[in-house]
Amino acid sequence: MNRVLYDLCGIDENLRFSPYCWRVKLALAHKGLDVECRPWHFTDKDALEFAYYDKVPVLVDGDEVVTDSYQIMAYLDRAYPDTPALLGSGEAEARARFFKYFGERLLAPAILKTVIMDLINAVHPKDREYFRDTREKRFGRTLEEFHSPAKGLAQLDTALEPMRGALTDNEYLDGKSAGGADYLVFGFFMWARCVSSADLVSNADPVYDWIERMLDLHDGLGRKALRITDVEGAYR
Amino acid sequence: MNRVLYDLCGIDENLRFSPYCWRVKLALAHKGLDVECRPWHFTDKDALEFAYYDKVPVLVDGDEVVTDSYQIMAYLDRAYPDTPALLGSGEAEARARFFKYFGERLLAPAILKTVIMDLINAVHPKDREYFRDTREKRFGRTLEEFHSPAKGLAQLDTALEPMRGALTDNEYLDGKSAGGADYLVFGFFMWARCVSSADLVSNADPVYDWIERMLDLHDGLGRKALRITDVEGAYR
Repeated sequence: MNRVLYDLCGIDENLRFSPYCWRVKLALAHKGLDVECRPWHFTDKDALEFAYYDKVPVLVDGDEVVTDSYQIMAYLDRAYPDTPALLGSGEAEARARFFKYFGERLLAPAILKTVIMDLINAVHPKDREYFRDTREKRFGRTLEEFHSPAKGLAQLDTALEPMRGALTDNEYLDGKSAGGADYLVFGFFMWARCVSSADLVSNADPVYDWIERMLDLHDGLGRKALRITDVEGAYR
Repeated sequence: MNRVLYDLCGIDENLRFSPYCWRVKLALAHKGLDVECRPWHFTDKDALEFAYYDKVPVLVDGDEVVTDSYQIMAYLDRAYPDTPALLGSGEAEARARFFKYFGERLLAPAILKTVIMDLINAVHPKDREYFRDTREKRFGRTLEEFHSPAKGLAQLDTALEPMRGALTDNEYLDGKSAGGADYLVFGFFMWARCVSSADLVSNADPVYDWIERMLDLHDGLGRKALRITDVEGAYR
């Protein structure tokens, strides 16, 4: 296979929890494209030098090197126009962008407050100092001070309101079937699922049913993913 | 003209502040369709009996009667397919729905906490008892208890995050020009603007520049709207 995705791994090489890599793995499956997901650690900066980038996802598709999950989705739409669209074009693409930021700027901070201590536990030991240093600098406090599941879950509960409305009207954010908007948001739920056993959403919530549907897509790609709770001795 | 929009009015017959009616007025302008905006009060329930509905907006377009702002926008796309799309179809339409709920369930509660006392002041005196009773029942407390500009503005500041991202990438939520997503959200900013002089957004915010652009659209339809601060003796 001539297609490689550099994919963050954790304490187990098969524990793959990056929300941005999940967007891309689901996007590739949506297009019916195979990929080799190559394990990468936060501190493997040298391995990405060829891409002039220091983060994953990085997709190598034949001669093409594409970085950034949203850019990769846009690239896949351009490079494989005969496969089902992810972002689409015109207004559809502009609207997709809102889901990108909804995930990154409303859901991610709320989920991070809830699972940050699970997350550092899932990070590979050789990456933990790097992870702690960069995140503590970003938060302006220690991970332990930032950790606040009660606050995180309350923030998440508020932030999910527009999803509840949309998912009462439709099965997916993109309508009758899942698409780019769903993947842009769902990556963050895979992130939490892989590193934590925390219940983010009550089973009476329309968002819960959507998560279940998303886990089943593409032969259960999300549902089959290794979780920290499956890694012997790794979950506190 | 054979097209009538029942449009909520306040203490002055020309004070039109309903966020849902604003969606429709901007949507009609987007389509290049003229309309007579007929003043309606909260307690004028009889006037809407023909529509089997008790709220505005109600659009009467020749023989067609359409209620609910989102349904009206969908109707306009169906009835006038040769005019620029509002919601569009397929994924674009499904994504538009998210903006509807984003406005209604994240922005509206935050704005309402901030401007509720301005709002009742803008309501026509004959409607105030109705407005107070229905809203106090909905909030489970008095308007005075619900009123909390500090909390409302903090909530709004968080909720605007995805808009900041999208509006840094594009001039409008719908991309290079304004469309359905923009109108679905902007209605709530018109609501606040018409009843209050509160600054909801700092002028360094990308959302501020978008509001300014939205106010200028369609010959300054939003900017020309009467504000409570223009109504002599009405603003505290």
